[in-house]
Amino acid sequence: MPKKKPDIDRVFHALGDPTRRAIMEHLSQGPVSVSRLAEPLNMTLAAVVQHLQVLEESGLVQTEKTGRVRTCRIESSGLSVAQQWITDRRPTWDRRLDKLGELLAEPENGR
Amino acid sequence: MPKKKPDIDRVFHALGDPTRRAIMEHLSQGPVSVSRLAEPLNMTLAAVVQHLQVLEESGLVQTEKTGRVRTCRIESSGLSVAQQWITDRRPTWDRRLDKLGELLAEPENGR
Repeated sequence: MPKKKPDIDRVFHALGDPTRRAIMEHLSQGPVSVSRLAEPLNMTLAAVVQHLQVLEESGLVQTEKTGRVRTCRIESSGLSVAQQWITDRRPTWDRRLDKLGELLAEPENGR
Repeated sequence: MPKKKPDIDRVFHALGDPTRRAIMEHLSQGPVSVSRLAEPLNMTLAAVVQHLQVLEESGLVQTEKTGRVRTCRIESSGLSVAQQWITDRRPTWDRRLDKLGELLAEPENGR
């Protein structure tokens, strides 16, 4: 579980892979075991574990072992680093409108 | 200048490369010509143009030729797609606090 601030290179490298983004999409619905995570992916468990290691080292995913089950969940620090980098690249007026719009939209879409 | 909605795969692939992120960082300070953009990068103009093509095809950069000078600028649609994807992966309380915090911080840092 890396506790130092995630590195922007690692985070974007990790998110550049469609399988790893699929894993993140699955985990955004809630924590899940490695074996459940692997079910819809057309690859070996070992390959899934490798992708999870990349995500964990980038601060995008946390895993925790209880007995024989390893549970994975989204770790927000990696996503924060990517989000901040993107926000800093946008024109000021654009960024403010975007954040305001998203904030106002939140209560209605119930997420 | 692609006007269709940027593809999430292309956007994250484009942002996964450190040179392309350096180009985005340079452009976030304002529009600039291809030759000025290439100056601090330790590579041929042809290599820079290739990176720019990837960024342009992902909807992250717009380029426009006037006479012999091609000017590049950030195109916000690609960044929006990446930002939205990241936002959708975060727990709700986390997202709301983040947006509120960033929104409140904006006037003070003057960006």
